[in-house]
Amino acid sequence: MPNSNSKRIAAEKAAAYIQDGMTVGLGTGSTAYWAIQEIGKKVHNGLQIKAVATSVQSEKLAIDLGIPLSPFSEIAEIDVTIDGADEVDGMWNLIKGGGGALLREKIIASSSKELIVVVDESKVVDRLGKFHLPVEVVKFGYELTRRKLSALGCEPKLRLVDQKPYMTDNGNYILDCDFKQIAMPSECHDAINSIPGVVDNGLFIGMAAKVIVGYKDGSVKECYNKP
Amino acid sequence: MPNSNSKRIAAEKAAAYIQDGMTVGLGTGSTAYWAIQEIGKKVHNGLQIKAVATSVQSEKLAIDLGIPLSPFSEIAEIDVTIDGADEVDGMWNLIKGGGGALLREKIIASSSKELIVVVDESKVVDRLGKFHLPVEVVKFGYELTRRKLSALGCEPKLRLVDQKPYMTDNGNYILDCDFKQIAMPSECHDAINSIPGVVDNGLFIGMAAKVIVGYKDGSVKECYNKP
Repeated sequence: MPNSNSKRIAAEKAAAYIQDGMTVGLGTGSTAYWAIQEIGKKVHNGLQIKAVATSVQSEKLAIDLGIPLSPFSEIAEIDVTIDGADEVDGMWNLIKGGGGALLREKIIASSSKELIVVVDESKVVDRLGKFHLPVEVVKFGYELTRRKLSALGCEPKLRLVDQKPYMTDNGNYILDCDFKQIAMPSECHDAINSIPGVVDNGLFIGMAAKVIVGYKDGSVKECYNKP
Repeated sequence: MPNSNSKRIAAEKAAAYIQDGMTVGLGTGSTAYWAIQEIGKKVHNGLQIKAVATSVQSEKLAIDLGIPLSPFSEIAEIDVTIDGADEVDGMWNLIKGGGGALLREKIIASSSKELIVVVDESKVVDRLGKFHLPVEVVKFGYELTRRKLSALGCEPKLRLVDQKPYMTDNGNYILDCDFKQIAMPSECHDAINSIPGVVDNGLFIGMAAKVIVGYKDGSVKECYNKP
């Protein structure tokens, strides 16, 4: 159970945006964890919402906390999604997927009117790419896909857990790609996704509507408008 | 067992390009079936090749015919892939995926020095799109993905088999999208693939190096150069 205070205060601030009647996307990871906790408290105190989760893990947490989940067939649009990020740059481009849920997170975020990103200050960077970019690929021929990713100038490593390939909730592999730095995130995103065998990658370009940063000193900075 | 003669003669002509020492991609479907049969005969007569298959179905056929298969980890590049198509237009853009193997076919084709497309005359069209475009999507939130596809101006239908969703070899769903006609195949391809949740679609743009068409009257037309 993560308990970093800077993550928690950012998450609590974000949860304040949730209102009665909303359909809410629940993110995945150590900061989203605190957002879900906070939403759970509000639901306990009478808040009426429907929620969808970006991972099996967050779904379980929501169920434990009594947050009502809806099937996608009953949802037209999501009002707000609160999710973390592994890196955020000054243009609010994100790297996500350290927790392996990037695809579900992107599907939910892309169906949301508003994506609120909650991070602690360590995730704010001048330039993306120090965090190795997670790329979700189908198992079939992943060696060929890896070779094409390498040709884009990165070093892709198959993510392992207990010396076996890590498997996403969708049954795919993750290649963690070391680009050193990503000078042009949007172009990089498109080049990676144009490779057959790539399902999606952890770059979230122009998707964040708000970024809320928690600091070690207990302060929170909320950015309302895109730079 | 498909036995259309026009498919068979196109496939035999394509198989004549296979030479000793080549790594060969084996397509999927009723025309590729005949190509694999012909390659099997050649292997039986001493042709030395390595092969990779685009589907479980073609893999089984290759094994039955004694065609040696290689794991992807041992393959740097594929010399020639022979595969069918559901539609071919005058610019050699293709719709593939009627058989459900579009993703594996595209992964193999994109790693091949040369893609030879074999079809009977019924597949040659002025404009793509009468054949409903297959789009492979992850199961998670496919209702949201379907809605985004609809917004591109098509009618996407979940492919069913025995009244249950059809599942690809990669564990995904297929949405067959009725666009009536696809005026700009390249733009359509990119727009579809930019939707989170889409794994890939059946448009093969600029990938075919040769198109071999078999006719009912027993003639074969081979196009050497791109239009």
